[in-house]
Parts: sequence; C-alpha cells; structure tokens
Amino acid sequence: METGTPVTAASGEDFELLNRYWSAANYLTVAQIYLQENPLLREPLLPRHIKPRLLGHWGTSPGLSLIYAHLNRLIRRTSAEVLFVAGPGHGGPAVVANVYLEGTYSEIYPKVGMDLQGLRRLVRQFSTPGGIASHVGPATPGSIHEGGELGYSLMHATGAAMDNPGLIVACVIGDGEAETGPLEASWKAPSFLNPARDGAVLPILHLNGYKISGPTVLGRKSDEDVEALLSAHGWDPVTVSGEDPVLVHRALASAMDESFGRIRELQSKARSQGVHGPARWPAIILRTPKGWTGPAMVDGLPVEGTFRSHQVPLANVRENPEHLAQLEAWMRSYQPVTLFDDAGRLVSELAALAPEGSLRMGAARAGRGWTGNVLEIPELEQYAVPASPRGSIVHETTRPLGELLRDVYIATASDPRFRLFCPDETNSNRLGAVFEATDRCLLEPARAGDHAVAEDHVSPGGRVVEVLSEHLCQGWLEGYLLTGRHGLFASYEAFAMVSASMTVQHAKWLQHARELEWRAPVPSLNILLTSTCWRNDHNGFSHQGPGLIDTVLSLSGTVTRVYLPPDANTLLVTADHILRSKDYVNLVVVDKQPHPQYLTLEEARRHAAAGASIWSWAGNERPDGARAVPDVVLACAGDIPTQETLAAAWLLQEHLPGLVVRVVNVMDAMVLPPRDAHPHGLSGEKFEELFTADGEVIMAWHGYARALHQLLHGRPRPERFHVRGYNEQGTTTTPFDMVVLNKMSRYHLVLEALRRIHRQLGGADELVDFCRRQLDAHARYIRDHFEDLPEIRDWVWSPHLT
Amino acid sequence: METGTPVTAASGEDFELLNRYWSAANYLTVAQIYLQENPLLREPLLPRHIKPRLLGHWGTSPGLSLIYAHLNRLIRRTSAEVLFVAGPGHGGPAVVANVYLEGTYSEIYPKVGMDLQGLRRLVRQFSTPGGIASHVGPATPGSIHEGGELGYSLMHATGAAMDNPGLIVACVIGDGEAETGPLEASWKAPSFLNPARDGAVLPILHLNGYKISGPTVLGRKSDEDVEALLSAHGWDPVTVSGEDPVLVHRALASAMDESFGRIRELQSKARSQGVHGPARWPAIILRTPKGWTGPAMVDGLPVEGTFRSHQVPLANVRENPEHLAQLEAWMRSYQPVTLFDDAGRLVSELAALAPEGSLRMGAARAGRGWTGNVLEIPELEQYAVPASPRGSIVHETTRPLGELLRDVYIATASDPRFRLFCPDETNSNRLGAVFEATDRCLLEPARAGDHAVAEDHVSPGGRVVEVLSEHLCQGWLEGYLLTGRHGLFASYEAFAMVSASMTVQHAKWLQHARELEWRAPVPSLNILLTSTCWRNDHNGFSHQGPGLIDTVLSLSGTVTRVYLPPDANTLLVTADHILRSKDYVNLVVVDKQPHPQYLTLEEARRHAAAGASIWSWAGNERPDGARAVPDVVLACAGDIPTQETLAAAWLLQEHLPGLVVRVVNVMDAMVLPPRDAHPHGLSGEKFEELFTADGEVIMAWHGYARALHQLLHGRPRPERFHVRGYNEQGTTTTPFDMVVLNKMSRYHLVLEALRRIHRQLGGADELVDFCRRQLDAHARYIRDHFEDLPEIRDWVWSPHLT
Ligand SMILES: Cc1ncc(C[n+]2csc(CCOP(=O)(O)OP(=O)(O)O)c2C)c(N)n1
Ligand SMILES: Cc1ncc(C[n+]2csc(CCOP(=O)(O)OP(=O)(O)O)c2C)c(N)n1
Ligand SMILES: [Mg+2]
Ligand SMILES: [Mg+2]
Repeated sequence: METGTPVTAASGEDFELLNRYWSAANYLTVAQIYLQENPLLREPLLPRHIKPRLLGHWGTSPGLSLIYAHLNRLIRRTSAEVLFVAGPGHGGPAVVANVYLEGTYSEIYPKVGMDLQGLRRLVRQFSTPGGIASHVGPATPGSIHEGGELGYSLMHATGAAMDNPGLIVACVIGDGEAETGPLEASWKAPSFLNPARDGAVLPILHLNGYKISGPTVLGRKSDEDVEALLSAHGWDPVTVSGEDPVLVHRALASAMDESFGRIRELQSKARSQGVHGPARWPAIILRTPKGWTGPAMVDGLPVEGTFRSHQVPLANVRENPEHLAQLEAWMRSYQPVTLFDDAGRLVSELAALAPEGSLRMGAARAGRGWTGNVLEIPELEQYAVPASPRGSIVHETTRPLGELLRDVYIATASDPRFRLFCPDETNSNRLGAVFEATDRCLLEPARAGDHAVAEDHVSPGGRVVEVLSEHLCQGWLEGYLLTGRHGLFASYEAFAMVSASMTVQHAKWLQHARELEWRAPVPSLNILLTSTCWRNDHNGFSHQGPGLIDTVLSLSGTVTRVYLPPDANTLLVTADHILRSKDYVNLVVVDKQPHPQYLTLEEARRHAAAGASIWSWAGNERPDGARAVPDVVLACAGDIPTQETLAAAWLLQEHLPGLVVRVVNVMDAMVLPPRDAHPHGLSGEKFEELFTADGEVIMAWHGYARALHQLLHGRPRPERFHVRGYNEQGTTTTPFDMVVLNKMSRYHLVLEALRRIHRQLGGADELVDFCRRQLDAHARYIRDHFEDLPEIRDWVWSPHLT
Repeated sequence: METGTPVTAASGEDFELLNRYWSAANYLTVAQIYLQENPLLREPLLPRHIKPRLLGHWGTSPGLSLIYAHLNRLIRRTSAEVLFVAGPGHGGPAVVANVYLEGTYSEIYPKVGMDLQGLRRLVRQFSTPGGIASHVGPATPGSIHEGGELGYSLMHATGAAMDNPGLIVACVIGDGEAETGPLEASWKAPSFLNPARDGAVLPILHLNGYKISGPTVLGRKSDEDVEALLSAHGWDPVTVSGEDPVLVHRALASAMDESFGRIRELQSKARSQGVHGPARWPAIILRTPKGWTGPAMVDGLPVEGTFRSHQVPLANVRENPEHLAQLEAWMRSYQPVTLFDDAGRLVSELAALAPEGSLRMGAARAGRGWTGNVLEIPELEQYAVPASPRGSIVHETTRPLGELLRDVYIATASDPRFRLFCPDETNSNRLGAVFEATDRCLLEPARAGDHAVAEDHVSPGGRVVEVLSEHLCQGWLEGYLLTGRHGLFASYEAFAMVSASMTVQHAKWLQHARELEWRAPVPSLNILLTSTCWRNDHNGFSHQGPGLIDTVLSLSGTVTRVYLPPDANTLLVTADHILRSKDYVNLVVVDKQPHPQYLTLEEARRHAAAGASIWSWAGNERPDGARAVPDVVLACAGDIPTQETLAAAWLLQEHLPGLVVRVVNVMDAMVLPPRDAHPHGLSGEKFEELFTADGEVIMAWHGYARALHQLLHGRPRPERFHVRGYNEQGTTTTPFDMVVLNKMSRYHLVLEALRRIHRQLGGADELVDFCRRQLDAHARYIRDHFEDLPEIRDWVWSPHLT
C-alpha cells in the first residue's frame, strides 16, 4: 500500500543492485538489436550470431532504462500506480527489455519465457519479420504511446492523468521531441490538471544532447535556461546531470523521491484545502550522454555522447572483425554472467527490484485499455427535434447534441469518465448546453478587474477542455481514451487538419491494438467537425477545407468510420452510436448553423442503421405503377448537399412532371465502397437497389468532389456517378454563393441531371433557361444586396402533389 | 534614411495626433463591419445604412491598429524597413483600414480612392460578395500571412527575416494563437536567427485576455510569468499594459523605441564583433482590453474587455433601435468629422503620421513577393549518374540532389537566397553533400565537453536549417518564399503529414495570390518526401504513410504538382524544374535508399517533359510487326512501384514469350486526370497512346491505392485500371515484405495481370503456380533468415532477347 508520506533517498543507499538492473536492461537492448543466436554470450560471439540487418535505436535506450529502473525503485518504496510513457518510442528494445525483466512480457507472451529459450526468442523477434516492431507500440505491455511520430508523449500522459486521481504518469521526453510544436504546447498541462481530481504527470526531459544527427536546442542551453523554461510554464523542475553512474543514480533517486513527495503533498493539500491556482508540479531534467555505456569510439570517431549513437553504433559487425570484437566487449562489459543464472533467468536479487503484480509498469491497469466502465447514453427521445412538416423546420443541428452531452456529464459526475475537448468553440459550435452541467477547466484564477468572469463558465473543476490547440485537444483526448475513458473532440472542419497526422497515427495504433487479445478495446476517437466548409461563408477560404475526410478515407476500414448526418435527429443517433463504440476513429461531419430538419427520431434510427436510404417522400417513383424506374437518381451526403439535392429534386418535379426522380441520402460514407474495401460497404444488390443497376446518378457530396470516386471504385460503371462537391473555391460571401462557386447548387444539380437524363422531356429546355437565369439573378442580387435571394434564403421543402 | 542611433520617446512627446490616427483606424474598422452606406456618418445612422449580414471581428482590431500606428511612428523616426505580420488575421478590417489610411490601398486598388466615393467602396466591399475577404490575406497590401488558421505568424515572420539583414518583421501574436503548438514552437527563433546576417523579428504578444469565448492561459498569468516564458526562450521582453490610452501610448512608444534601439545594437555588435551565442532580441508583451474603445455593455452584459467583443459586438443593429443608437454613439465617439475632411480624405495632420513611399508597411518590398532574384541552377550533367546497363546500377537516388543543392549554396553564398529546411534528416536523407558548402544553423555554442563538435557541421553561420519540427521547417520556409527567396523542405514522407494543414493553407494563399496582378509570383513551396512508406521497413508502421499525396491531390490544380521520379536523373530534372518554378506547391516523392537507375540524363529530360512515357525497352511490343497491340499495360509511378513493375514485366516475358507487354512509367501524377481537372492532364489521344483505348492496365502506385482512382475519374472506362499501392499494411520487416504485405509485389502484379489478360496463353497456369510458390518461399525465408530471398535482394533488370 502507498505510504502517503514523502520518502527520500537515504544518503547511504547503495545503488549497486539498481545499477546492475540497469546493466541487464542495457544488455538485453543491445542483444535485441544485434543477436539472433547466443543471447547470453555463453559462447564467443561469431558473425553467424548477428542478424543480417541491424535495425533499432541504441542512443536513447540507456536513458529510458535508467529512468525505468528508478521508477521501479520508487514504486517499490511507495506502491504508487505509475504509467510509463516513452516519448522516444524508437527506444522500443529498451522498454521491451524492461517489461521482460519485470516479468510482464512473459506473462502476456508466454512463448517468450524467462529462460534461455525465451531469451533467444526475445532477441530474434526484435525488428524481424513475424516478430515485433522496432518502436514501443500496442504490442508493448503497459504502453499507451507509440512514439514513432514524435511530439505527443506529454499530451498522451496528461490525458491519461485526467480524472485518474491515483495515477502518476511518468513521461520521458527526448530533447529532440521537445523541439516539436505539439510537445511545446503540452508544457501548459499545469493549467489544466486539477490536483484534487486528476492524477499527476511527471515529465522527465531527457537532454542527451542530440537527435538523429544534430545537436538539440535545449541540449545546448544551460541548466538554468532549461529550468527557467519549465518554471515559466508552471513546473517545478530539478536537474540531474552527469556521466558517472554512481552520482547520477544518487541524484536521480532523490529527484524521484522528492518529486513523488511533492506530488502527494500537492494532491493532499488540494484534496483537503481546495484548489487555488495551478499546482507547481515537479519535473525532472535529466542530462546524460546519448548512447551512455555504449562504445566510446568507433572507427576513430566519438560515438558515446554523440549523435552517432542514435541508431546502431557498430554497423558492420558481421563483416568487420574489429566491430565484432568491439560489440562483444561492449556486451560483456555489462557482465551478463552475473545478471542471468544458468537457466537464463534474471538473478533473484535483481528480480527483487521490480515491483510486483499490477504495480509493474508493464502491467499497469491504465495501460491496458478499457476499464469496463460503460458510458450510459440517455434516451434520445428527450432531445429529438420535431421534423414535421418535413424539411420546413429549421434548427441548429448540433444544439440537441449539446443537450445530450450535458446529460452525459451529469450522469458521470460522480464517476467522471467523459470529456469534451474543443479549441474554444464549444459555444460557437452550439454545444453550449454542456455549461449547464460543468465548466471549462482552467486552473489560473481570473485576474483582478476581469470583466467577464461571471459568464465565463471557467473553473478548475470544469470538465470541458478548451484550449486553442487542436493538437492538445486531440492528444489529451487520445490519452484519456487509451486509458479507458470516453470523449469527443469538436473542431472547425478545416482546422481538424491541424491534427490530421495524429488521426492517422491513432488509427494505426488501433488497427494493430485490436489484433492483440490481451488489450481491452478502448472507446473510439470521436471527431466532430462542425463549422463546415459550406457554412464558412463568413470566415472565408482558409476556413473551408473538408480535407480530413480524404485523410480518413485512405486509412484502414477496420478502424475508420465517416458519418454525415443530414439533420439533428440523425446526429443524435450517430452520437449515441459513436459514444458507445470501441476501437474506431469516427469522423462526424455536420454544420452548426440553422438547417432544415427532415427525419423523426424513429426514421433517423432506421436511416442510420441502413447507412443510406431512398427518401421516397422526396422523389416521385411509384414502384408499382408507371413510374417504376427513375430517370435519374439524386444522391446526397451531408447537410448542405442534402438541402441542395432536395431543392433540385423539387425543381425537377415541379418543372418536368413526367420525370421520375429518386433521392438517396447517404449518411454513412462507408456504405459506398464494396464490402472488401470497407466492412460497411453495401452488398451489390443493396447498392443496386439504391442507385439502380446502371442509371445515372447525380451526387452532391460534402467533401472534395473527386475524392468520392475512390469510394465508388469497384462498383459497376462508376462513371455514371456525376459528383459535385467542394472544389476548392471560396471566399467570404453568402451561404448560397458557396454552393454556386463550387457548382453544387440546386441549379447546377438540375442542369447536370438534365445533361444526363436519357429521355427527351418537354419543358427541359425551359428548365435549363430557368436555372441559368436564376444563377445570373443570384450573382447580381448578392452583389447589390449582400445577402441571398429571398427565394433561396426562405426556401423550404414542400411536397409535390403528384 | 535610417539614423542607426537609438531613439527614445521623449518624455514630453504628445500622443494626441497618434491617438486620433488610431481613432481613424478604429472608425474605419467599425464602418467596414457595419456600413453599406453613409460611411462617414454625414447623415444620422439609419437601418438601411447597415449591411444585412454583419461579419467580421472587432475584438482584435483595436490592438492591431494601435500597434500599426506605433510602428508607423517608429518607421518615421528611424526609416526602418518594417514588415507587418498580423497573427490574428481575423482582424482583416483593421489592417485594411491602416493600409488605406497610409495610402497604399488606393494606389493598388484605385477604385477605392481616398475620397468619399472610395470610402463608400471601402466599407461596402468588406466581407461581401465580389468584395474582399474578412481576413488579412493575399489581397491585403503588405501581407505575407493570412492568419486564418492560427499558429503560424511567428514562423512566417522568422522565415521572412532570414537572410534579410535590413528587415524588421513586427509580428502580432494573439494570446489565443499563443496556445497553439506551432506558435509555441516558434519562440525558439533566437536560436536560429543570426544577428549578423539575418533581419530581426519583433514579436508583440497581445494579451487581450480572450479568444472566441474563453479566457486565454497567458492572459490569466501574471506579467512576471509571461515575461519569464519569453525570457526562457531567449527573448528580452518588456510589458506594456493598461486601459488608459494616454498611458499606453507613452509606454508602447518607448517600448518600441527601446526595442528598435536594442535590435540595431545587437545587429551592429554582431556585425562588427562577430556572433557569440544567440541574441537576446526584444519582445513586447501588450496587455490591453479586447475590443478596446468598443461598447462597454450591450444588453446588460459587459462587452469591452471580454470575449463578447470577439466578433460583432452589437448584433441586431438593423432591427433593434437601441443597438442602432449604440452603434452610432460608438462610431461618433471617434469623432469622424475631425478625422476626415469634406472630401472624405484623412486630414493632413494625421496623414502626415504615416511613413512615406516604400517605407509604408502596406508597400513593403518584402511583402510583395518575388524580388526578381533568379536562382541559378547548375548544369545537371555534372551530377548525373550512369544508367547503363539499364536498371542494374544501384544508387542512392537523393545523393546527386545533395550535390546539386551544395552547388546552389555555393553559387548563392555572396547573395544568400536559398535554404534547405529539414527536421534533422539532411544526412539521413543522403543530402549531406550540402555540408561541404554550409553548416546547420544554430546560435547556441557547443557545451564544454561536447564530444561531437568537430563533425557536427553546426555553426551560427550555417544556412541549412534543421529543427525537429515539421511545422517550423515548413513555416520558416514559407516566410522565406513569400518574401521572394527559394528553398526546399525535405521530410520523412509520413511526417510531412504533421504540417499537412499548412500545405493546404499555403496552396490556398497561392491560389488567390496568383490572381492578383500587383503581387509578384513567389518561388514555389517545394516539399521533398524521402524515407518513403515502402522503405520504412526498418522503422515500422507509424513511419509508413503516403497521405500527403492525397491531401495535395484534392487542392486546386492551378497550384499543385505531384512528382514521383523513378530514379536519380529524373529527380535531378525534377529538382531543376521545381526550384525554378513559381507559385506552386511541388510535392516530390522519392526514396533515399539505394535503388536501381534507369534513365540517362537525356532520357530523364524527355521523360520529365512528357510526364509519362512508354518504356519500350522494358516491354516487348513491335508496333510495326505482329506484336502491335499489348495484351496488358503495366503502369507504375514511384521508385519501388517501378522496380516491382519492371520485375513483373520481366517475369511475364520470361515465362510467357507469346505475351505482349507494355510498361508505362508515370512521373508526373497530374498527367492522369483529364485536362479540365488539372492543367497537366494528358489529352485524350495522348492518354490513349500510353494506356490504349480500353485495354487492361495494371498500375503500381506509390501512394494509397484507392486514392489513385480519383485521378482517373473522367478517363474512359476507369475500371480497367487495376491499382496496387500502399494499403495501410506494415510493420518492421524486410523491404520486399512491405510490397508483399500490400500486395504490390512483382508476383502480385503478375498474378493480377494474368487475371486480367483476355487471351489464353500456354504457360500461364505454371506462372501462377510459380508466383504463389515464390510468395510462400518468401514468407518462410524471411522468418528464418530475417532478410529477403537472394533472388529478390540481388534482382536487377536484364533485357530480354526477344
Ligand atoms: C515528427 C517526427 N519527425 C521526425 C522524426 C524522425 N526522428 C526519429 S528519432 C529522431 C530524433 C529524436 O531525438 P530525441 O527526441 O532527442 O530522442 P533521443 O535523442 O533520445 O533518441 C527523429 C528526428 C520523427 N520520428 N517524428
Ligand atoms: C487553428 C485554429 N483553430 C481555431 C480557430 C478559430 N478561431 C478563430 S479566432 C480564435 C480566437 C483567437 O484568439 P486570439 O489569438 O487571442 O486573438 P484575439 O483575441 O486578438 O482575437 C479562434 C479560436 C482558428 N482560426 N485557427
Ligand atoms: Mg536526444
Ligand atoms: Mg486574445
């Protein structure tokens, strides 16, 4: 059990055992990088023991192992629950060595047992086909962070700590990683971590001076300057620096002890006396040589303590006997015979240094995913908006979702496990109802004379997280999800591209993680894109970018979902689904402005279940009568495309009564590709039921027009789909002008339909003229009146009496 | 002319005129947001004078105008060349007001003259159809920064200052923007700006306390904490704070004077005595109320000094007479009658406050694009690699490019106008030859005891910029390009997605900028993606992501180009082309590992000019003989796809001598779409010449397989293209296993070809068996030997004697 009282490294403490434990980890790291046989060097080292391709990163590894060993020590002394996040994820072999030494690796992967046979497997599997990847990743016990794309360690750590009051997340940050924007943004965590309610993050900034081949900015700064930087961000840093292991062990142990004591002190003070401003959390700055304990010189050039140790310090071991001898000497310098017994097991006095059971960092509960804590979603009925008469009630589509989220907050208040993350747009996105249940979280108190305090909805206890950084919003949420909690990231559509690469990386994580039986599924990453391209008429071109859809479309269908609910009730059903779902990246695209509402909740449920359906009320087919076969299918996906499509369908029916029109609404984009490309793909028959066997389809699509064609590939005669969508045209203008500029307006859809319809129809020429005249009138009117034509602004759907 | 000696605000200086100038700017800002008529309130304000849709951002505007007015003062006193960057680009009306007041606006847009008629146009055009956008953008004189997607102001400013020794870039940063990762990363500029060689950046961090609807982190911190943060990053900050204009003017003027003095002092010291460590550049922290001078209260709620002033403080002016009266009072509080004369011209005592001619910030040379400084590219012959025998010489494709860039550095040494930006991978990307000409730039000196100094190639005078931030690399380069210089951003393919949103925004900027005649074209943004998905077998799944191609494909064809040179000579030709080009985003994708070389420089030139061509040496057509019509076209784009395609072509010809095979290599992806989708699109005839009229095409594509279909849309019978590409499968494995996992290997291509060929061919079944056996053998072999089968590793192209 945790002692609660601060501990400090007794000055007389002997670090010899801990140093040997570190040696064992370093030894196994080098062994993984180089060996395919002879894992304990029981025989003299021969070229055939060496892997043919040497992959892996040595330079960062001794630092990771040093920290891991000291965290073990701390956990044994305090019984604290600690999660380990390795920013330099390229140090995979070091982390694997450590979870192997503590025993969790063999528990999860019994084939890699704690014996000679297991050691052979351990070294052979590293970075080899059918083996394990070179980076820390989903397959690494205890990990919630891959560290391949650098920059997100501290945000993942911070998200993991939120609403996890007992947890300490130890986060190693490379000095290279510390140069990235996302990492620099993460230093502001103290402003968002509430010591009474949240767990703690212990950053360990590892200044080994180098990245791949250059020095680092912080590595070259003085201790005082680096400390000043962390201090200025609100941390309380202590520097541990040196090249002598004995001294470093002593200093690092006492830095760890003091940090832990300080964390518990801050927490117990906040928990008993309340929160008054941000806590000055401890942080450790560790300055030790890159590739420490590795070869000092290779081929006459310095390696230890330089960038040359970054990957594989001795590159030609198989061919160059000198390198081979150097490798052997290096490995034997760790004295493996004293570390592992005859059976290949870590000697017991070292094994005793690791924590036990679930306190081992590789076995951390928080590192295994979902906690089993179901998120209960309230009944949707209470938020549903009326949809009758169809298409003529106008409502801000996202507002009811805000009410739903408010009630999710209320329901989880006593056992917090849901958060909304948003760059300062919760209100603007019409999700403001959440502020009836909770506040924005900010630890800094208002300044004297602040005029707006009362209505700010800002407090240290709030659980809405608003920070003007899409990186932080998404990264904190990812950390929160990967430790088993639930949430939503709401962003302007265009600026979700800011963190697009994080979306890619998270999808990759999930894709590999779901293949691992021992990992619990985690709640999905839910990204809500509001303030979409079509309705950024007020902000202009930079705010108009549906690109994240394209990014997500390319990722693996096993984990990605793209929803385009056309109205509020379909959004509610979508939200209900995605908040319950596991292991997906759910992209939901819907605008926040007032939009016409079409479906009742019951209809919305059916539509969502189908993913796409014929809206028969909007067309004029009579399957049993003369109008059995549509002349044209008007398909749409997304709110504005739906509105324009309905208006086009109405115009066509109004002007050409003989024409048979079908309207199909697609709200799950992934029904479009064939099933072998995405599990949501409609069967061939179902696809044909909606879009006919080979009739012409005019499709209004929310995103980039051309991107849709990649979804349709593999469907029969894809050329019959004539897609209109965002075409990278825009500026500050009227809402309708946006669809005109991109040629997706009702008039453009009608013109396109007329171009494609095979039959001659009386009235078609007049309709063409009408559309052209309307487009001209629009262009003139908006330049004179600065708003859309009344017949456009006030248009609502009305049924035809056919 | 510039005085050179420091100036300080005389304590007796009277700021009344300056304050009135500020009032004029504020007045015009409000007028732009609200009015469509009656621009100078010569009549009482009526509802019909008000625009029907009120768009624009007031809150940030008074701060921008205050700073602009004080910079004007500074320029008049010092004749310094100053470029203005507005981080809060949503303050468009304020910047337009200022460039109008100083006269540059009317010079560039004579229709918006400096008279009543011009004023009417000025207010009517703002945020209206056919008018100007709401944000600072390409159309704004003097601007190199749009500020729509927040985060990049300080990096653009820093890039503009590089190699621009006389320039001072004044950069306003919002406290909201300051929360973003990219902005936080940018504070490290002092480590990369050389005071002897580069210009200066003067950051003005504007703490108005709020973003859209919440308080900001820095806004709530104490002056000391904010100063400590900037100090820790190496700046020398001074805080100006207040709500009384008189006091703020005095304090800001002296902060400006002191900052300027300090800048010149740092520069002249560095220029005379050399550079010893980073300069402590001045920075100004300005704390004034958001929406200052606007309505204090609206509908009983505080507005001035709160988030409620962010956009349009009085929202219902047309309908609500109280709001209308409040607006009129607000506007009249600036006393427009005293600001503009009867003709509608700024009164002369105020006009005299603006700098003259090209010293006006709206007329800044650096803000107009290209300087006319041609980049001379050396003759390519000297770098060309031998390509004979074809496909059997193996060479690191990017190495000759490094040599070319080295010589570009040498050629521009005396008039620096080229830079390579790269996140620490110049060497790893085999571009290390540049270090024969220059170093990595870093101002921090090595630390005592640093082991690697000699080989670091690091010095304050270096002009390769390596920082582990794709955001900074790209953002600094963008600032460099937008001020008329040339450069290249080289990145791991996967991690170029980190700054994908910046690529989107830059493309949008170029798309609009190129429509403006008064803007000179700017050198293209060249992004080189090396270390591609196919050859990140060593790093694993997180490093395998060709997503930036998809992002670029969706953007406007007027500005985007995507090149996939198959070998070193085609890369040289591509580099030559993109470095000379203007106003494009050029994406070049090529791997850095050793690859087979195919084309001589002369052939490379022809191939590049065509964009795609038949490699007749790799097929066996005889147009004039029996083999006139290919049974199958094997197409490829990218180095690894080319290699696998050639191997497949070889296998097909070897095993099925009766088969007629054509190989087409595509090195310009944009030849594939029809010309109406991209200007590089091949004509229908040319497309048919390459790919036949409707024969089957097996295409091996570098990027995501499905994404290619969007390019082919609009071509006849696109279903006949069977595309293999990256399919989001990967891990740490062997190189050939990567193409196997993604089903793009030579064997998969052969199998696909056999599935698609219409003729019955003797030997086909045996070849199918052979391919399957080879794939099995591969799977077994790599698991045993950890490297590829010898026949794969050692395979080189050899001609068939058919
Ligand atoms: C976003 C990103 N850009 C580039 C890389 C390529 N890369 C891999 S490791 C590395 C250097 C990391 O340096 P540091 O964080 O100091 O780690 P350490 O020195 O401990 O290895 C780089 C640039 C990457 N992984 N991620
Ligand atoms: C990357 C990004 N995310 C979100 C937004 C939406 N947005 C526009 S203005 C703004 C607030 C800006 O606050 P600040 O930088 O303090 O500017 P100011 O207070 O001067 O208006 C936000 C969040 C944006 N423009 N860019
Ligand atoms: Mg490092
Ligand atoms: Mg602000």
